[in-house]
Amino acid sequence: MKHNYLNNTEITEAREKYFSALTSSGFGAQTESVPVSAAHGRVLANAVYAKICSPHYNASAMDGIAVRAKDTYGACEAEPTILSPDRYTVVDTGDPLPEDCDAVVMIEDVTEDEKGYVKLISSVAPWQNVRQVGEDICFGDMIAPTGTVVTPSLCGAFLAGGVLKVEVKKQPVFGIIPTGDEIVEPTDDPQKGEIIEFNSTIFSAMLREWKADCKIHSIVKDKKALLSAAVSDMAEQCDAVLVLAGSSAGRDDYTSAIISGLGEVIVHGVAAKPGKPAVLGLIGSTPVIGLPGYPVSAIVVMEEFVKPLIDLCYNRPGKKPETIKAVLSKRVVSSLKYKEYVRVALGRLGDNFFAVPLPRGAGIITSFTKAAGILEVPQNLEGIETGETVSVRLLKDKNEIESSLIITGSHDPIIDEIADMLQKKNCGFTVISSHVGSMGAINAIKNKQAHMGAVHLLDGETGEYNKSYVERNFPDSGAVLIKGVGRVQGLMVKKGNPLNIRSITDLKGCKYVNRQRGAGTRVLFDYLLNKYGISPEEIEGYRNELYTHTAVAALVAAGNADAGLGIYSAAKMYGLDFIPICNEEYDFLVDREYVDSPMVKAFFEVLRSGEFKRRLGEIGGYSTEG
Amino acid sequence: MKHNYLNNTEITEAREKYFSALTSSGFGAQTESVPVSAAHGRVLANAVYAKICSPHYNASAMDGIAVRAKDTYGACEAEPTILSPDRYTVVDTGDPLPEDCDAVVMIEDVTEDEKGYVKLISSVAPWQNVRQVGEDICFGDMIAPTGTVVTPSLCGAFLAGGVLKVEVKKQPVFGIIPTGDEIVEPTDDPQKGEIIEFNSTIFSAMLREWKADCKIHSIVKDKKALLSAAVSDMAEQCDAVLVLAGSSAGRDDYTSAIISGLGEVIVHGVAAKPGKPAVLGLIGSTPVIGLPGYPVSAIVVMEEFVKPLIDLCYNRPGKKPETIKAVLSKRVVSSLKYKEYVRVALGRLGDNFFAVPLPRGAGIITSFTKAAGILEVPQNLEGIETGETVSVRLLKDKNEIESSLIITGSHDPIIDEIADMLQKKNCGFTVISSHVGSMGAINAIKNKQAHMGAVHLLDGETGEYNKSYVERNFPDSGAVLIKGVGRVQGLMVKKGNPLNIRSITDLKGCKYVNRQRGAGTRVLFDYLLNKYGISPEEIEGYRNELYTHTAVAALVAAGNADAGLGIYSAAKMYGLDFIPICNEEYDFLVDREYVDSPMVKAFFEVLRSGEFKRRLGEIGGYSTEG
Repeated sequence: MKHNYLNNTEITEAREKYFSALTSSGFGAQTESVPVSAAHGRVLANAVYAKICSPHYNASAMDGIAVRAKDTYGACEAEPTILSPDRYTVVDTGDPLPEDCDAVVMIEDVTEDEKGYVKLISSVAPWQNVRQVGEDICFGDMIAPTGTVVTPSLCGAFLAGGVLKVEVKKQPVFGIIPTGDEIVEPTDDPQKGEIIEFNSTIFSAMLREWKADCKIHSIVKDKKALLSAAVSDMAEQCDAVLVLAGSSAGRDDYTSAIISGLGEVIVHGVAAKPGKPAVLGLIGSTPVIGLPGYPVSAIVVMEEFVKPLIDLCYNRPGKKPETIKAVLSKRVVSSLKYKEYVRVALGRLGDNFFAVPLPRGAGIITSFTKAAGILEVPQNLEGIETGETVSVRLLKDKNEIESSLIITGSHDPIIDEIADMLQKKNCGFTVISSHVGSMGAINAIKNKQAHMGAVHLLDGETGEYNKSYVERNFPDSGAVLIKGVGRVQGLMVKKGNPLNIRSITDLKGCKYVNRQRGAGTRVLFDYLLNKYGISPEEIEGYRNELYTHTAVAALVAAGNADAGLGIYSAAKMYGLDFIPICNEEYDFLVDREYVDSPMVKAFFEVLRSGEFKRRLGEIGGYSTEG
Repeated sequence: MKHNYLNNTEITEAREKYFSALTSSGFGAQTESVPVSAAHGRVLANAVYAKICSPHYNASAMDGIAVRAKDTYGACEAEPTILSPDRYTVVDTGDPLPEDCDAVVMIEDVTEDEKGYVKLISSVAPWQNVRQVGEDICFGDMIAPTGTVVTPSLCGAFLAGGVLKVEVKKQPVFGIIPTGDEIVEPTDDPQKGEIIEFNSTIFSAMLREWKADCKIHSIVKDKKALLSAAVSDMAEQCDAVLVLAGSSAGRDDYTSAIISGLGEVIVHGVAAKPGKPAVLGLIGSTPVIGLPGYPVSAIVVMEEFVKPLIDLCYNRPGKKPETIKAVLSKRVVSSLKYKEYVRVALGRLGDNFFAVPLPRGAGIITSFTKAAGILEVPQNLEGIETGETVSVRLLKDKNEIESSLIITGSHDPIIDEIADMLQKKNCGFTVISSHVGSMGAINAIKNKQAHMGAVHLLDGETGEYNKSYVERNFPDSGAVLIKGVGRVQGLMVKKGNPLNIRSITDLKGCKYVNRQRGAGTRVLFDYLLNKYGISPEEIEGYRNELYTHTAVAALVAAGNADAGLGIYSAAKMYGLDFIPICNEEYDFLVDREYVDSPMVKAFFEVLRSGEFKRRLGEIGGYSTEG
């Protein structure tokens, strides 16, 4: 057991150091020639000049007759001009003008007699209704300068200008090497200790978005010789190499040593969280980057180092990311040791955007799938307070964020179901939901950070659900309570109930898994403990707090706990036994301002639909008599 | 010769009529199952639920030793806890936790003696440094709802959740049929009357951007039987068919009749300019659309009908296009007969965007390549006045428009060359140039619609260039004149000078091609005519006005004119004889406010560079002693 420490190089410094080494090594933009039909979306490496004029001959601009303009002078309704058949030629749009003609009379203005003589009632000027040579493009003209991204219409202009091939910046090819003894190809049945290799799929998709190609190597075991051979092989075949996992300084972390052996490590360890264990190296003039195994850390390293590396390949300045100003809804504590990248959900009510920090674990890939933006906490800040206005880098389309229905509060899978049904109906907005518990819902509505919230709060005194909480918190009726569904809460225990748990009092001496403070289910549990005179200290695992019913069920199923309080559907899904404790009312609290908004209306329309009742029936444990 | 008239159905009405016919026919979204590795960018047809938890076992979150948390309680610097080798297990990040362990002590906090006993100086809580089962994703949770566009991180989340395949909306496949006797495959040496088939390349690229695939049919001649067979064949193979050209009501326009024969034409002719001759039809439940042959018209039809058709295939609401407010710099006259789509260049100086209308011909594909936006003039407006604020739909990135150097005025290819050199230097901004003549440059600078202008204006009285014009127009020194290059102006005539043109006076009786009013070259020509006592009426073709030197050269080369005034380089490029008339000073006028801006500075840096002089030398006809 030994431990090496990484460096902690500041991000900008690390990038400058690395890129200057890359540039010195001769790394840079390469070009290739492609047919115009394959040039769409590519970046021009050179200016493109027209090789021919377009049109390249004088062409009739419409269907009609080609004439000498002079022959038509003076024609009018009162004194029409008559042309004999040898003085005109019938032409269609695009036809070449006969040598001796210099104008076209449109067919609508021509009357022909049976002998072929035509009568004109208006004159045409020279070159009228003619597309003269070069009207669109002239031979020798620059159609587009270096660096232009080829659009569909540019493809057309190139071909119209007689250009069949163009020189474009070569898309860099990245070799991706997944490594690790515990890593396995994607499967829906991994064994204990096996980790599904999904990082290469994420990174190849990111590379595609940044206009790079990739080759994915098969998984390499944690053997130095094998790893070294794979890295050296890929460095030869590709323009750059990404080595996945093994980038830190642990027992089986070989990336840095291998790059050192084959080339040079410029930076090992950067002041980023997540993303610290990054290796920035180089073999010959080929960049080789060691990415951390945790997906979230690796994505940060991809954004901070690989994306600008691709810009270098294109010899283009990095695109300025789109940002918005948002009010931070929850305090973020950070450290002076690193710059932190916090994934945030974004919402907008009224004029303000607000940002909700998401779970910060480096292994939580869903923090990226749920995030609408990244809040960067600079290294010199220890944190940012609730209510401060921050700048957030957008990951999603601003319009989408602006037209989202924001639902917060107690977790129940039915919210996801309703969101899905709204999407199926092509409702034109998305649902952003977050699990902050029932009390969280009340606070969010108060603070104008959600259109609606989901609540199931038992009033211990009255035995009623929700009503008293709403009256107490919204004495001015700023929020409206709308009946949702009834659901059964109970204790989830292992199949067969080996510990024979029958009620709350049986939990003493068992391992319990709890919900987070503020959750309705937690309020219920604390109420029950109090009712039966049990103190939290008597419950082992009381502090093991989770955010959803399924998370609790998963831990009971895994044996981390013997019991947890939750809804029937979660127990059913995980094949657990279920001891019903009570029926509760899961209702919706809606900011009065938005009760009649189309989004809220659409939500309740779905809630009342037959299809929703059908889905509820499938899930089980719900009633809808309300 | 006969002429049929098209209908003139209003756009929205046409779309509603057509789409309701499509929907009734059974046309709509289709789905397919794809592996997650191919799902990036696709649209989910159903909600995706996790099939396993992630992690699916309790995993060590770091390198260290797995322990029972209870064994560590009370450990501190003063009273360290000692654990014998059988009380802990060494684990690496990701390793499964042994059955009887519930926490991990990180390696940095462990000291091991030679017998394998470890000393701990702090305690760990249950589940500390452990990624519990389902920390990221719980079995049964919805990972993403219907309609989600699959991002890189979602690909990762799917695989982490044991999902190997997902159901996505099928990309519709469009069959494209280019038609026409005169149409030929792309070539750099087309014969007279041959039109290069570039429309299918434009449209397939547009379809790709809208997430549709396509099959391109070989070119079909204007024979009814051949066309009918091709349309019927493609309608069977594809989800939709585009028939290129032949969509109007002329002699050889068969699209409408063929669709009627095989199915039904819903609309023929829409109130759009360009874009009027569109055919919206349907064979069975397959949409078949006839696009006009003119590329600009066809692009409008693609935007107005094909794009929303693809949205229909995805069962999604159309994305709201990004628009900006801009001040119109030139009056646009339109008609009450149609909605007009005017391509505009966009620029920004100070706080305001302004829009400059581009040439409106339906055959001018470069009006799209140069456009940054589309100004839609509603059918009920006869035009929009200079200075009015209009809403422009963006075709380019707003940031790019905002960071562009705007140069206007006299045409000279050297401006394109400098723009290209700036791009090669990765300068971080683009150059927007337009040819409005020298007088246009002065007006644009006055109206704050350009950073700089290019001028070559001869003062007939003093014989001097530019200076007096600037003094007269900017008495308050609001603009600075900066020396550019010297260049030779002269008469461009056919090779061998068959008409023996020696000077301006020889132009009487010849066909001339002129430059537009306001161009420096036009000012020079009018000055010369006046000097030699020639009236414009004596010059045939005086009213044939073009915007660039190359366009004039192209027409002399094509025989549309015997002579035109222009610069040496244009004559040289087209192999024309050149009769020098004068040396002129081609200078730059810069708004004083921007003289020291980085963009203007970079421009002049390039102008003074050796590389620029080298390029000038290659082009010929310039001097740089200034």
